[in-house]
Amino acid sequence: MKYSFRNDYSSIALDEILLKLNECKNEQNIGYGEDLHTKRAVKMINDKIKGNSDIYFIAGGTITNMIAIGSILKPYEAVIACDTGHINVHETGAIEGLGHKVLYGKNIDGKLTIDSIKTILNNHTDYHMVKPKLIYISNATELGSVYSLNELKEIYNYAHKHDLYLYLDGARLASALDASDIKYEDYRKYTDIFYIGGTKNGCPFGEALVINNDKLKIEFQYYIKHFGGMLAKGFVPAICFEVLMGNDNYINVGRLENEMAKYLIAELKKINIKFYSKSVTNQVFPILPNNILDRLYDDYDFEYWVKGDEESVIRFVTSFTTRKEHIDGLVLKIKELLSID
Amino acid sequence: MKYSFRNDYSSIALDEILLKLNECKNEQNIGYGEDLHTKRAVKMINDKIKGNSDIYFIAGGTITNMIAIGSILKPYEAVIACDTGHINVHETGAIEGLGHKVLYGKNIDGKLTIDSIKTILNNHTDYHMVKPKLIYISNATELGSVYSLNELKEIYNYAHKHDLYLYLDGARLASALDASDIKYEDYRKYTDIFYIGGTKNGCPFGEALVINNDKLKIEFQYYIKHFGGMLAKGFVPAICFEVLMGNDNYINVGRLENEMAKYLIAELKKINIKFYSKSVTNQVFPILPNNILDRLYDDYDFEYWVKGDEESVIRFVTSFTTRKEHIDGLVLKIKELLSID
Amino acid sequence: MKYSFRNDYSSIALDEILLKLNECKNEQNIGYGEDLHTKRAVKMINDKIKGNSDIYFIAGGTITNMIAIGSILKPYEAVIACDTGHINVHETGAIEGLGHKVLYGKNIDGKLTIDSIKTILNNHTDYHMVKPKLIYISNATELGSVYSLNELKEIYNYAHKHDLYLYLDGARLASALDASDIKYEDYRKYTDIFYIGGTKNGCPFGEALVINNDKLKIEFQYYIKHFGGMLAKGFVPAICFEVLMGNDNYINVGRLENEMAKYLIAELKKINIKFYSKSVTNQVFPILPNNILDRLYDDYDFEYWVKGDEESVIRFVTSFTTRKEHIDGLVLKIKELLSID
Amino acid sequence: MKYSFRNDYSSIALDEILLKLNECKNEQNIGYGEDLHTKRAVKMINDKIKGNSDIYFIAGGTITNMIAIGSILKPYEAVIACDTGHINVHETGAIEGLGHKVLYGKNIDGKLTIDSIKTILNNHTDYHMVKPKLIYISNATELGSVYSLNELKEIYNYAHKHDLYLYLDGARLASALDASDIKYEDYRKYTDIFYIGGTKNGCPFGEALVINNDKLKIEFQYYIKHFGGMLAKGFVPAICFEVLMGNDNYINVGRLENEMAKYLIAELKKINIKFYSKSVTNQVFPILPNNILDRLYDDYDFEYWVKGDEESVIRFVTSFTTRKEHIDGLVLKIKELLSID
Repeated sequence: MKYSFRNDYSSIALDEILLKLNECKNEQNIGYGEDLHTKRAVKMINDKIKGNSDIYFIAGGTITNMIAIGSILKPYEAVIACDTGHINVHETGAIEGLGHKVLYGKNIDGKLTIDSIKTILNNHTDYHMVKPKLIYISNATELGSVYSLNELKEIYNYAHKHDLYLYLDGARLASALDASDIKYEDYRKYTDIFYIGGTKNGCPFGEALVINNDKLKIEFQYYIKHFGGMLAKGFVPAICFEVLMGNDNYINVGRLENEMAKYLIAELKKINIKFYSKSVTNQVFPILPNNILDRLYDDYDFEYWVKGDEESVIRFVTSFTTRKEHIDGLVLKIKELLSID
Repeated sequence: MKYSFRNDYSSIALDEILLKLNECKNEQNIGYGEDLHTKRAVKMINDKIKGNSDIYFIAGGTITNMIAIGSILKPYEAVIACDTGHINVHETGAIEGLGHKVLYGKNIDGKLTIDSIKTILNNHTDYHMVKPKLIYISNATELGSVYSLNELKEIYNYAHKHDLYLYLDGARLASALDASDIKYEDYRKYTDIFYIGGTKNGCPFGEALVINNDKLKIEFQYYIKHFGGMLAKGFVPAICFEVLMGNDNYINVGRLENEMAKYLIAELKKINIKFYSKSVTNQVFPILPNNILDRLYDDYDFEYWVKGDEESVIRFVTSFTTRKEHIDGLVLKIKELLSID
Repeated sequence: MKYSFRNDYSSIALDEILLKLNECKNEQNIGYGEDLHTKRAVKMINDKIKGNSDIYFIAGGTITNMIAIGSILKPYEAVIACDTGHINVHETGAIEGLGHKVLYGKNIDGKLTIDSIKTILNNHTDYHMVKPKLIYISNATELGSVYSLNELKEIYNYAHKHDLYLYLDGARLASALDASDIKYEDYRKYTDIFYIGGTKNGCPFGEALVINNDKLKIEFQYYIKHFGGMLAKGFVPAICFEVLMGNDNYINVGRLENEMAKYLIAELKKINIKFYSKSVTNQVFPILPNNILDRLYDDYDFEYWVKGDEESVIRFVTSFTTRKEHIDGLVLKIKELLSID
Repeated sequence: MKYSFRNDYSSIALDEILLKLNECKNEQNIGYGEDLHTKRAVKMINDKIKGNSDIYFIAGGTITNMIAIGSILKPYEAVIACDTGHINVHETGAIEGLGHKVLYGKNIDGKLTIDSIKTILNNHTDYHMVKPKLIYISNATELGSVYSLNELKEIYNYAHKHDLYLYLDGARLASALDASDIKYEDYRKYTDIFYIGGTKNGCPFGEALVINNDKLKIEFQYYIKHFGGMLAKGFVPAICFEVLMGNDNYINVGRLENEMAKYLIAELKKINIKFYSKSVTNQVFPILPNNILDRLYDDYDFEYWVKGDEESVIRFVTSFTTRKEHIDGLVLKIKELLSID
């Protein structure tokens, strides 16, 4: 069985989560997130973010984005993202499916810039065009980079100055919490709404959508149900989040993944491999010659990012299961294929 | 802790499912349902239904209904249901959210009748009105009754004669498989598309959407992703369905629930309790005097169905955790409150 | 050429409107309703309704209903109508196309009742169901009846007591203004939004959507454009409405139509024809034996409403072109076919 | 009253159209486009394009685009346009409102290129992304340029080779018919669906949507009604199109407009004015110093296109009312303001 660096959602769950699910197996809980596990998990998150936010557990990332964005925008309003944003590229038009245009600017190192936002606002000033009302960013980004606290504050302040909301997609928030200087409570202070990703950080499924802005809290369960995201057994992801929010479990998932990624980058740099982006989290984008990739794929699973004629960008993702020996094996194999010794 | 007859999704999962998840915990699987567990679970279902259907695992019932119905209907087409149908009442307008009208006729004992369908077709004959194109039924129904094989055939044949598709919601298919003479393979033969419910039959989450009609199979993953139902860890519900489809595990869940429900009905009939519907599955709708309900609620959890001035319809649901002693305790309590001995 | 009683939109326009269009033919006007004719027509309507409402001119009835309803409701909210309501039956699911459920109650004489509304509210009380937020009625109704001022007030007060909006479809408002005791200004006082129909009252096209409630006025042009209802030459329907709002032109159209309808009803009653509804406006629904209808159709155009085995309900509509001699001819023909002399 | 070069929809209609409407004023016609005028106008268009296409008359450009695109695409499918495409910029997200993403590439001189289409196709290859299914172009373009017959054929052939449909927006088709070598029948041969613009070519309102591809013709009236575009008095735009399609009336509108635009360009070039685009039709985009624009606006109406710090791009549009003396006056004024003599 070859080891997979294809993504961070290859394995069912953290051991602690499976253990906890077993412990709770004889319980009966009320449905639809009205149970005690949900209450506890919500409290644990609010403790971490030092807030009093409304929090809901939803099955996956795309449906969470749909609910968040679909609950905020009026029919003629649009969301601003960067070109590489998940909602712009990898959700099969789910946001447009709700009726909203995704306006995008060119990313710089995976990130949306104030300049892009400004240009978009300047170009959308009357009723013949959509009205931008929401900014979408993700931390970590699709290219493995992270926003710094200053960058987040700047975007948040710009948004509020221009009567826009800010939504942050935290599919890989664990990695971002480790790699960036943005702390839990900053996500509460400097976004209107964000989500803490579970699926890519050790849960079998489930994301925690956190609504900080009171205006966005109204009748929220209606949105969840209407858009198809209400889970009957809401207590299952809640139990998972009780584990993730216990101690430093969540950030530790990110820390481990980031360390493994850093180690991988360092080892590849030693043999002069170049990279597509300056990743500081668990997604690594080396550029490798095409002639070794098929053979590398015999032993390791990974994804193609940009196929070129001579060489290609591929993606390695570290996960909570990745250990130093997996990296060592991978690097050894690459060396071997490149005939380096 | 009081025992809950509120619903059949109060407990995490069957022991066998939790065990199997633990067994697989060290595996790495490809995402989005392209893994081996999904292949195996799909094969197991196809063996049961003696077919070669396309099968996808989706998080919950409402989103499954959305994907099924939203993939079939053109913008101006409508789905026919009975008034009590889940899509008509309890999905917060999710189907309308996709742009489609739900046309409904009055249920007879929880079921849609050919007469209703006929009337709806007769009333929708030109382009000023929506075009009915799909029939929606569920087995078991919302009132605990089931369609017989003859009834299913009749609806299916009527549908195909009138160029309509038939979709069957199997949120509680385990109970229906036990209580009705419709066998697994009949659901393949006599529906165009149906789903085998997991959430209400022992899974932590997950439903298996089964597409029998080749015309409806095209580019289906696009629909799943577009509507927000694509699970990154598709292998998790697939593992659950491997368990459910092993031996007679699935139908046994239904059998146990139905037996418990039958026993409850029999015991309540002994003390002359009347019922709102002729349930043969795991939902029981007794009519009880309001003056005992608050006190009953102190010891047992249940749901109000129709509140009346003197007496009310309440709902007891048996689940895979229900045992004879739970029923005995419940009946004893009711007797006590009614001062019967 | 046989005379048509098929509907009230068979002829291009009132002579006065065609004259006025000719008078203005050498003008240049700004587009999208920002012109002087629009300003004047808006003022003339506001003078009639003694208000300060926001008013927009839109091409036709269905798109006007879509814009009105689509601008008010959040994704999970629903509109209440009666079963025969135009939005419920004759708009090919346009409202559902915007994502909203149409909840309906049985009409009494073409009208929605408080009882129906009450029942619908009682049945929609939590987030598993759509949230009713808007009441839709039309005056005149689809069956030719009208709401009285008391009825309108009662519905409006009930709506506001229960945090619902009231929208009134005035496709045939001219007839209603003549037949009911509701005056122009009452439509301003006792609805949140309504429209003054042009197409069915002598315009080549165009309806005037009148927004009374300040909360519903915000960024309204965005809605019009987004839903496809923004006319480049907005000044064309505005010019038409300048004519309609001049003197008593608009109500006079309704008065003439109603008089012709009343005369027709009286003449048909003399020969013992029965009617399907108690119409007081320009739609008349006689019940006639099937064996004369084909021959009647040779000389007069009309529409079938309800086809029966022996006799059928048909619809005669009087319009601004209908004169006494048309009615006399029609009645004579019916008598002849029924062999009455 | 200052003369307006703001757009080509400032005046009600061609004299011939107003005359014809007057001639027909005593007629009664069936509604919804089932009348004889519609039949005649459809035949006249089919004669011009030497085809047997299905043709419908719809109120305006945006709703026509919505109906065309919304009738073709499945929920997860997308339309390809260039960045300046009307549907991408100036329809307030109406296409996204129907659920579809607009994918766009950078325009070259206002036109979509095969290279852009190719890149978009290469980047959208699996179910995590929308599926491109339709190409949208307009002739004339938003910048006044036109596609040549070779360019149209190339795009059409490329589209069909890659299983895409081609839709052409002909809001300003009259100008394009004059300025490009694409003849009426080529629009039938080399598009799947296109529209012949009325509103911007002398009609009070109305566009003729022409469906060439049989696959797209099915149940089309349902789409028109569902999306809100069905006109009760469909015969009114049909009468207008009877006039436009008579003799060379339609192309003559374009010819006159183009001649006036050419004359304007020539005169401005004489005084060394630069232009933003190489327009060959009735939209002209001169670059003028900001310090004269306010004073120019005192005498002439026009639109700002791109505001700069020193100079700005403005738009002059010639219309069926534009005469040589209007151009002469405008140029004289500009000279005067620039102190040229």
